[in-house]
Amino acid sequence: MPAETGFQEFRVEEYIVKKEPFYIPLTDEIDIFQASYRQKVPILLKGPTGTGKTRFVEYMAWRLGQPLTVIKSKSKSQQSDADGHVSGAIPLVTVACHEDMTASDLIGRYLLDINGTRWIDGPLTRAVKAGGICYLDEVVEARKDTTVIIHPLTDHRRILTVDKLGQVLEAAPGFLLVVSYNPGYQNALKDLKHSTRQRFVALEFDFPTGEREAKIIAHEAGVDAETATLLAKLGEKIRNLREHGLDEGASTRVLIYAGRLIKEGIPPRRACQVSVTWGITDDAHVQRSIDEVVSSIFP
Amino acid sequence: MPAETGFQEFRVEEYIVKKEPFYIPLTDEIDIFQASYRQKVPILLKGPTGTGKTRFVEYMAWRLGQPLTVIKSKSKSQQSDADGHVSGAIPLVTVACHEDMTASDLIGRYLLDINGTRWIDGPLTRAVKAGGICYLDEVVEARKDTTVIIHPLTDHRRILTVDKLGQVLEAAPGFLLVVSYNPGYQNALKDLKHSTRQRFVALEFDFPTGEREAKIIAHEAGVDAETATLLAKLGEKIRNLREHGLDEGASTRVLIYAGRLIKEGIPPRRACQVSVTWGITDDAHVQRSIDEVVSSIFP
Amino acid sequence: MPAETGFQEFRVEEYIVKKEPFYIPLTDEIDIFQASYRQKVPILLKGPTGTGKTRFVEYMAWRLGQPLTVIKSKSKSQQSDADGHVSGAIPLVTVACHEDMTASDLIGRYLLDINGTRWIDGPLTRAVKAGGICYLDEVVEARKDTTVIIHPLTDHRRILTVDKLGQVLEAAPGFLLVVSYNPGYQNALKDLKHSTRQRFVALEFDFPTGEREAKIIAHEAGVDAETATLLAKLGEKIRNLREHGLDEGASTRVLIYAGRLIKEGIPPRRACQVSVTWGITDDAHVQRSIDEVVSSIFP
Amino acid sequence: MPAETGFQEFRVEEYIVKKEPFYIPLTDEIDIFQASYRQKVPILLKGPTGTGKTRFVEYMAWRLGQPLTVIKSKSKSQQSDADGHVSGAIPLVTVACHEDMTASDLIGRYLLDINGTRWIDGPLTRAVKAGGICYLDEVVEARKDTTVIIHPLTDHRRILTVDKLGQVLEAAPGFLLVVSYNPGYQNALKDLKHSTRQRFVALEFDFPTGEREAKIIAHEAGVDAETATLLAKLGEKIRNLREHGLDEGASTRVLIYAGRLIKEGIPPRRACQVSVTWGITDDAHVQRSIDEVVSSIFP
Amino acid sequence: MPAETGFQEFRVEEYIVKKEPFYIPLTDEIDIFQASYRQKVPILLKGPTGTGKTRFVEYMAWRLGQPLTVIKSKSKSQQSDADGHVSGAIPLVTVACHEDMTASDLIGRYLLDINGTRWIDGPLTRAVKAGGICYLDEVVEARKDTTVIIHPLTDHRRILTVDKLGQVLEAAPGFLLVVSYNPGYQNALKDLKHSTRQRFVALEFDFPTGEREAKIIAHEAGVDAETATLLAKLGEKIRNLREHGLDEGASTRVLIYAGRLIKEGIPPRRACQVSVTWGITDDAHVQRSIDEVVSSIFP
Amino acid sequence: MPAETGFQEFRVEEYIVKKEPFYIPLTDEIDIFQASYRQKVPILLKGPTGTGKTRFVEYMAWRLGQPLTVIKSKSKSQQSDADGHVSGAIPLVTVACHEDMTASDLIGRYLLDINGTRWIDGPLTRAVKAGGICYLDEVVEARKDTTVIIHPLTDHRRILTVDKLGQVLEAAPGFLLVVSYNPGYQNALKDLKHSTRQRFVALEFDFPTGEREAKIIAHEAGVDAETATLLAKLGEKIRNLREHGLDEGASTRVLIYAGRLIKEGIPPRRACQVSVTWGITDDAHVQRSIDEVVSSIFP
Repeated sequence: MPAETGFQEFRVEEYIVKKEPFYIPLTDEIDIFQASYRQKVPILLKGPTGTGKTRFVEYMAWRLGQPLTVIKSKSKSQQSDADGHVSGAIPLVTVACHEDMTASDLIGRYLLDINGTRWIDGPLTRAVKAGGICYLDEVVEARKDTTVIIHPLTDHRRILTVDKLGQVLEAAPGFLLVVSYNPGYQNALKDLKHSTRQRFVALEFDFPTGEREAKIIAHEAGVDAETATLLAKLGEKIRNLREHGLDEGASTRVLIYAGRLIKEGIPPRRACQVSVTWGITDDAHVQRSIDEVVSSIFP
Repeated sequence: MPAETGFQEFRVEEYIVKKEPFYIPLTDEIDIFQASYRQKVPILLKGPTGTGKTRFVEYMAWRLGQPLTVIKSKSKSQQSDADGHVSGAIPLVTVACHEDMTASDLIGRYLLDINGTRWIDGPLTRAVKAGGICYLDEVVEARKDTTVIIHPLTDHRRILTVDKLGQVLEAAPGFLLVVSYNPGYQNALKDLKHSTRQRFVALEFDFPTGEREAKIIAHEAGVDAETATLLAKLGEKIRNLREHGLDEGASTRVLIYAGRLIKEGIPPRRACQVSVTWGITDDAHVQRSIDEVVSSIFP
Repeated sequence: MPAETGFQEFRVEEYIVKKEPFYIPLTDEIDIFQASYRQKVPILLKGPTGTGKTRFVEYMAWRLGQPLTVIKSKSKSQQSDADGHVSGAIPLVTVACHEDMTASDLIGRYLLDINGTRWIDGPLTRAVKAGGICYLDEVVEARKDTTVIIHPLTDHRRILTVDKLGQVLEAAPGFLLVVSYNPGYQNALKDLKHSTRQRFVALEFDFPTGEREAKIIAHEAGVDAETATLLAKLGEKIRNLREHGLDEGASTRVLIYAGRLIKEGIPPRRACQVSVTWGITDDAHVQRSIDEVVSSIFP
Repeated sequence: MPAETGFQEFRVEEYIVKKEPFYIPLTDEIDIFQASYRQKVPILLKGPTGTGKTRFVEYMAWRLGQPLTVIKSKSKSQQSDADGHVSGAIPLVTVACHEDMTASDLIGRYLLDINGTRWIDGPLTRAVKAGGICYLDEVVEARKDTTVIIHPLTDHRRILTVDKLGQVLEAAPGFLLVVSYNPGYQNALKDLKHSTRQRFVALEFDFPTGEREAKIIAHEAGVDAETATLLAKLGEKIRNLREHGLDEGASTRVLIYAGRLIKEGIPPRRACQVSVTWGITDDAHVQRSIDEVVSSIFP
Repeated sequence: MPAETGFQEFRVEEYIVKKEPFYIPLTDEIDIFQASYRQKVPILLKGPTGTGKTRFVEYMAWRLGQPLTVIKSKSKSQQSDADGHVSGAIPLVTVACHEDMTASDLIGRYLLDINGTRWIDGPLTRAVKAGGICYLDEVVEARKDTTVIIHPLTDHRRILTVDKLGQVLEAAPGFLLVVSYNPGYQNALKDLKHSTRQRFVALEFDFPTGEREAKIIAHEAGVDAETATLLAKLGEKIRNLREHGLDEGASTRVLIYAGRLIKEGIPPRRACQVSVTWGITDDAHVQRSIDEVVSSIFP
Repeated sequence: MPAETGFQEFRVEEYIVKKEPFYIPLTDEIDIFQASYRQKVPILLKGPTGTGKTRFVEYMAWRLGQPLTVIKSKSKSQQSDADGHVSGAIPLVTVACHEDMTASDLIGRYLLDINGTRWIDGPLTRAVKAGGICYLDEVVEARKDTTVIIHPLTDHRRILTVDKLGQVLEAAPGFLLVVSYNPGYQNALKDLKHSTRQRFVALEFDFPTGEREAKIIAHEAGVDAETATLLAKLGEKIRNLREHGLDEGASTRVLIYAGRLIKEGIPPRRACQVSVTWGITDDAHVQRSIDEVVSSIFP
């Protein structure tokens, strides 16, 4: 494991979603996303953890990059940037925001190596230059100096000011900013300012319905349809417990985890306990309620 | 996408508003701005998000730069600075302030590259040197060390002290400081100090009236007059809901977004839902009230 | 607009007040200032925004530098420093303090350029060396490490310790520290410590009386005596509203702004509205009260 | 003791658990861990201090690296990485998280030496490259920028973005993230976000039962079975005091300490007092209760 | 006023109090200080602002350095350090502590200049090496990392660890730490820890009595005995107002200021108003009470 | 006093306690310490200021290093490290923790000098390498990143990870971590975490009893037995006042101070007043109570 001394270039290919992500649409969210993308209207995805927001963005990045998709305002630069194997593909740059994240984390910074300083583009700058989708997950978590960057990228200007380079970059045509946030988490201190919020079209996400979730579980965990259906039913019932002291329902992810352990031979009730019951709460009382639900489904 | 290692010079041309921005005056704000500009009296724009403050500044920067505009105290330096294609134009430097913004972000800083350190002017310094308008959007968000810079630029001194260069810059004749703030946001901790505030003439902005807003929507979204009128009516009705739990009304921007999605073929009620209802609030109860308004207008 | 790479020397001439500032004395404040200056007793100016504290310091710096002024303990160094055109003049170094200001901002710091590091004197160090007046405006705003500097400059020691140079500078004879603060702003966290406060003689400032203020407005805005008198009357009446929800009265500055807009052809009532009413408050109720006062004066 | 000027390379061997850790299973936790490891499902260990979480991870790292253990998805890279004496072994990188820990502490940073800068991989990067288990002990203590790293390592992406190198590392096949946290400590400010939490299968740990704990004490302290049994009984009784003002029960570790002091000739009651009574609480009242328990067991 | 590029050496002579400070003893504080100095027992001076603590330390530093003073444990190093004109003198290094002061500010730091880095001793290190008195004024204001330095200098170890140099300095024989603090200011957050506090012998200071204060005022302000007596009486009466809303009484310093202005020809009542009334409070009600006292003394 | 430009090497000899510290045992604390040292069990010393914790550690470091002391697990490295005059001696590295102390302060850091960067071991690293006792005084004061260091040094691993060097150091055999804390000071924010706390055997310290304290005072202050006995009696009586508003009793240190001043000729009551009464409290009421106790003992 030798220590690294050089820098590697970022390659746009690393950001192309090459395989179709497994995605089952909820309603018309694909149409809305496509219309917004064509109109260069930034998109805000709202909803609790595990309702498929990240997966949806990955799916749209893949779909918009397919030859059959008609993107009216298709960018010239993307065609000319294409190096043969990537044609019309939309790079997707995903950033999980957090409360210590600053504008520099998004834009880029100088790094020192043995040959002096060298500029490294941040993830947002890469998306702006490559004409890709930049997805800022849980954007309200980021520090407020990110506002100064987001605003001119989300109106008619579509520019990114890279202060440290003394540059004003115009976003490549295919660029779009997509952000997500979870309304359940927010408090007064950590809310999107109205001046930021009203720069986005909003799509609300919620947990998938039973049948749709069963399909997802079957696909992701590799379990049979029957087990998947039971697990989806479990998810649904647990979400109904939310009024009884549960902060947030079980995400599809923990149901998939349960499925995977079942596939490995762990007994279903035990698999559900470690993936679901213990995974989503520490409250002994709530845990008992969930375990009862588990027992009623996997008797 | 190679990494950058050099610096590019700032060019004043990048800051000239070249095309007339679409702007429909509300009342005599153009006269007030022109009189203040001639008298070198700094300007404060007050009002909620989406009432056109930024657009107004862009429009004034463009208008004041037109040959027909008589600017009595027209700066000599701007004439002599002119390099042929830019004559009398007023550069506009816009900065979206945020709570991590410091004086250095406005004035400039040293950067290291392979040839040593190099000074990069900040946006305010550029405006001061070029004799342009510096627009500090939501100025109260900036950290308080910005006060030390703003004060001597807003009284008879009109100077900018660049400590790190050991320089005192006299503002070029065309320079004017314009700031905005949203009274609805402020709290005790984040208010303009009186000693700062009373250095500005103030213009109050509010949402445009129905007819004026319809014209803006039609122009910006590219929809027909009828749709634009309906969307403007929607905006007006929603703003009347403000007494019923809505923090801030719908900005013209979200109405334009709805118009754009309608133009892309999204059904009007759905377009309004994702642009307006979901865009401006997370409160399910308020959302229902807005959706009812939408349904009454787009039945 | 090429980027700067070198440093410019500070020149003491930049800090000489060359033209007599327009100043109408309130009472015996000129005598007190002169006596304190001769006795090397530091001065604290108290009072609300816009009551002429800064202007008074500028006036005194100019006045003390005039040949006719008898300064008993006139410093030898200033005479020998004189380079021909500046003789006996007192440099004035003004610093608007803010909550991010540290001792280094006042004393100086090292800067890196292409030739290595170089020391740049801060504003206080310049005043100490040049034997000038250092005016720290709103001194309580500065961070507390400034205390360590101010104390030994305000007692019999009259020294400035420049830690980073390893130097102890004795203040040149003409040096005096003048600070201001606004008692209305202070709270427990941001008050002058007694150990700091009792190092100054204090002068209290309040808004000028009608006739005196009219003269100032006429001079500064270039309006006729009648308009100036009406504006002064407006100021007086508004200040009487202070008991009715107005935090701070209108400063002379906003009255001058109104005068300037009137001179540019803006109707008086509108000029007063944007300069005074909207300038000093966001409270709609208070605004109406002020507008009524405006209407009664400019019917 | 000469000062160091060079860097030493990290060697993967340092992170291999070479000797079988002494571990007595509680229930089916070994099966769950193995199933999760095969399924690449991250693991969260919950429970109070001293319940064997760290020891369990060490044991599993050792066990999974044994030839007899059938790891279905055994990584090719680990076989090819093997340098002869290490074959199939799973490196274990343990990090005790704390409230000043940042992402850089986990990922790595540049260091300056006499030959210029040099990159040093952080502990997480080492685990990602070597295909080992990375155990983040008390993960909620770390600063929130760690979230941005953990998320893409815990879903289908299994990638680590090393911003400062401009690299996206794909985790080697054997990599798994294991984290622990103590539900009793958490408060609103320091809780795992749901979006983080639901990325793990959870195993709950509690204090061992009497017989199992006695075996551990006998093995670790080197005392006879009788003393070990008495100490285990002491632990059990003290944990029952938890309802009477004791924040947290005695860990097995302090019982082992008591055993070791007894072995050194310290009288049992005194050994228990300094290891257990004084070790776990400062409350004089609670101390008396514990001392009484001690006296009843070691009369 | 050329910018500095080099460093000047600290010279111990700069820290010798060469002229006898004017000091009138209160009681046996000189004996206590001398006994403590001989016994190397650190000293804590307590009392409100302006009660002469700093002056007392200066006086003692001067007095202990006089040939006639018998200092039993007189340090050899000071004799050998003597360069001819300074023999037995005790350097005094005074530091006004503040809430941003760190250990580095006291110990020293590396500075970069054109020839590379260079170490500059901080004030405490200078006192430790030179065997002088280090006076930390208002020590509780300093940040807590100063504790780590003070402790080993105030017990039998008498050492200063200079981490950045990798050195442990033994204090020269004449070294003594003297600190001051004002009990009236302290709160729970800013109090001396007991483990720090009980390392000092404490002397309490209060305002001087009438006759003693009159002598000081006459000497320092250069006024006649009668005026000095009246001013001392004023001070005494104002201090009696302390129960009536005055935080802290008038220091001797402000009385001296009043005396100086009187000497410059300012009428006594006005001189007292600007020096005393306005100097010590902003409360209009308390100001009136003080003005009445002034009027009763200077009718 | 020339400025330093080079680094000096740390020498292990500087950390050897060469002279037997004066220590009178309280009970069996010497046996417990020795047993723990042989068993490599870390030690926590609890108790108020001035109860001899630091002195005890110094005594034990000296005692364990004596040839007659039988240390079963005596380290080989220490024998081979011995350079002739130091054989078997245990270095003692003491660190007074404070709230700004970070892990780097304990582990070490790079320093820049004219020849480039150079690593300087921190105090903990020195103890780990030299096989000495590292004593962290008031450990809860240190910042929480110290936890990450302490944990692996206090269990079976006995390792120190020096991230910045990329090294994992195994502690030399003689190494032991000893920490102290004062239960009276702690609050919820600054308490040892259970996961840290239960890594230590704990010894509780309290003020010495009358006779034992008298011996200490006589030895340290150099006063006769009678005076020492009276001072010890004073200490005991004052500690009984603790229920009457005194936060913490008089430490032995302040009694020694009183003894020293008496030896210098200061009258006993006055010596007690400045050392004890004024030294331990600012409360006038409590001071009177203490003075009464003083008067009853020194009539």
